[in-house]
Amino acid sequence: MLAELAPHHIRAIAPYQPGKPIGELARELGLDPATIVKLASNENPLGIGPKARAAVERELAELARYPDGSGYELKAKIARKFGVGEAQIVLGNGSNDVLDLIARTFLTAGDSSVYSQYAFAVYPLAVQAMGAEGIAVRAVDYGHDLEAMRAAIRPDTKIVWIANPNNPTGTLARPGDLIEFLELCPAHVLVVLDEAYTEYLPREKRSDSIAWLRQFPNLIVVRTFSKAYGLAGLRVGMALASPEVADLLNRLRQPFNVNSLAQAAACAALDDDAFLAESVRVNLAGMAQLTAAFQRMGLSFIQSYGNFVTFHCGDAGLLNRFMLERGVIVRPLAGYGLPNSLRVSIGLPEENARFIAVLEEAMDD
Amino acid sequence: MLAELAPHHIRAIAPYQPGKPIGELARELGLDPATIVKLASNENPLGIGPKARAAVERELAELARYPDGSGYELKAKIARKFGVGEAQIVLGNGSNDVLDLIARTFLTAGDSSVYSQYAFAVYPLAVQAMGAEGIAVRAVDYGHDLEAMRAAIRPDTKIVWIANPNNPTGTLARPGDLIEFLELCPAHVLVVLDEAYTEYLPREKRSDSIAWLRQFPNLIVVRTFSKAYGLAGLRVGMALASPEVADLLNRLRQPFNVNSLAQAAACAALDDDAFLAESVRVNLAGMAQLTAAFQRMGLSFIQSYGNFVTFHCGDAGLLNRFMLERGVIVRPLAGYGLPNSLRVSIGLPEENARFIAVLEEAMDD
Repeated sequence: MLAELAPHHIRAIAPYQPGKPIGELARELGLDPATIVKLASNENPLGIGPKARAAVERELAELARYPDGSGYELKAKIARKFGVGEAQIVLGNGSNDVLDLIARTFLTAGDSSVYSQYAFAVYPLAVQAMGAEGIAVRAVDYGHDLEAMRAAIRPDTKIVWIANPNNPTGTLARPGDLIEFLELCPAHVLVVLDEAYTEYLPREKRSDSIAWLRQFPNLIVVRTFSKAYGLAGLRVGMALASPEVADLLNRLRQPFNVNSLAQAAACAALDDDAFLAESVRVNLAGMAQLTAAFQRMGLSFIQSYGNFVTFHCGDAGLLNRFMLERGVIVRPLAGYGLPNSLRVSIGLPEENARFIAVLEEAMDD
Repeated sequence: MLAELAPHHIRAIAPYQPGKPIGELARELGLDPATIVKLASNENPLGIGPKARAAVERELAELARYPDGSGYELKAKIARKFGVGEAQIVLGNGSNDVLDLIARTFLTAGDSSVYSQYAFAVYPLAVQAMGAEGIAVRAVDYGHDLEAMRAAIRPDTKIVWIANPNNPTGTLARPGDLIEFLELCPAHVLVVLDEAYTEYLPREKRSDSIAWLRQFPNLIVVRTFSKAYGLAGLRVGMALASPEVADLLNRLRQPFNVNSLAQAAACAALDDDAFLAESVRVNLAGMAQLTAAFQRMGLSFIQSYGNFVTFHCGDAGLLNRFMLERGVIVRPLAGYGLPNSLRVSIGLPEENARFIAVLEEAMDD
């Protein structure tokens, strides 16, 4: 048995279950892909922005060249845009890569790591892959209980993961509570603040997290280009941290982890404020459209600050199946311990309407 | 000191040094990028193939969607093309990602792993990142000494890495010697056969390695789309292994590690036999052009089976500097323990000629 060569914690990993791709559903149920609506992976329904797309097209001739392993231009642009030093930036093949790097750099077997119940599934996976112990702290109202998370920190705890807003519940911590957490957290414990959805927040709800880096060298802010920036298919994310922490993460980083097109597109996306604003506007309108429908149907949901909303519906497996058969892909959350809930990503108005129509059909069934 | 939170083996990592990108040299020395010849990273001088490029262009509208995490279409195509089951395939963000996954899945602190002196630098890095011990076996004529590598296997050895052809020396092991190695290697030791350059080999020199998988469940064959297939900038590589080993590797794989464009381009590249044949033809001609020049100049070189050749030149640092200042980028090998050698990738005829002209200028200097 070759599998026994791998340590037990590796063999015990149950891989991340992504949202079902359109092609897969089409094959499984013999549906026409063009008729399928996918609201399962918190993607940007506007697609890639025009500036990013133009940048990708300019880069096509150079694809046989390796990417710039140092990410020179993208890091220079990020440094200017966010007011950090280039030595504070770690680029990743999506933010998943960055989260993995953090776990791989700092955790060893025997360490522990703290995250919230219902938090993003990659944290427990990244911790388990290192043979470290994950401490899941009970959520309050589906959100992070920061006080309890702080109390859960043990002498062997190296990393605390905070998703803000959290996926899949959409909950948000207040900036003041996060600052308090950072002030009271031991200085030798790393705090990963994963802000994959932060661009969707109104300014007054947003944490000034990047400025906090100056005060808290144990803070790591994680961002992605997969959501509001519309580049999920290209894979690019980043960590911003103290130069000391960033240097360690970069040692473990694969030199060509971010492909050439992703680097070019992310540079251009950072310049496309109009597209970002439109993405946020479409998201707000879609959120209103979906939550109004839930209220009309008497379905409860978790107030969300992301580009998705989780609603409660009794037997979610049954409803999910009903929707799939009608070409609507949403995200079941049984893996998160929420077997009576589904997460729907916010789409274009017509995609949301299609989801609502199928949901109404199911409710009447 | 936050760095002390990371284990010692992580802090001791000296990251991989990639070939200098054209843009970087242009910035450093104020050269016009259009005049720079880069023969430093074993890239395909023909660029991306026409079928792969068309596939990328078709995919551009969908970039806000996550990639297919299962790699359904690419795996189906690989399975047909190479006669393996889909459950035997692990896709990576370049073959570097696959090599990393192998180390992360099987190595723990206290294990050891065997590779050759002068072998591809990613093996020792991947081993070190897991806190395992690397055993570098002395090379013979710059190539792998398979008998000595077998003798170096200890009870705590989990993985043996074989690069064939090897980068950066270009040496090749005979199929018969590899089979003998596999037959005599303990069945519980994984053998990674990294064949990044195999497409450049004439048929009679090629190992029938994928067929060997049926006989040796501890064999992992690694391939890349970054060389002869011309997709280095997109990042896609793969491991072919027994289903049991592939399943473990896939558990640790980031679900979206291979971006959408890379998947589409790799599918198309596997159909473009004409481009592959032309890449091999250009490589053979360029190899003849370069080695004839070395012979003419009385410079010794290592006979190479890849798309590059390593030659000996006295103080390589000095020659490298001379070439950089004249806009020719090759690869210094001091990091490999070869301070008197440079590796030049095979380019287009005019790129090779430019390299040769600058080399002649240096020799006359």
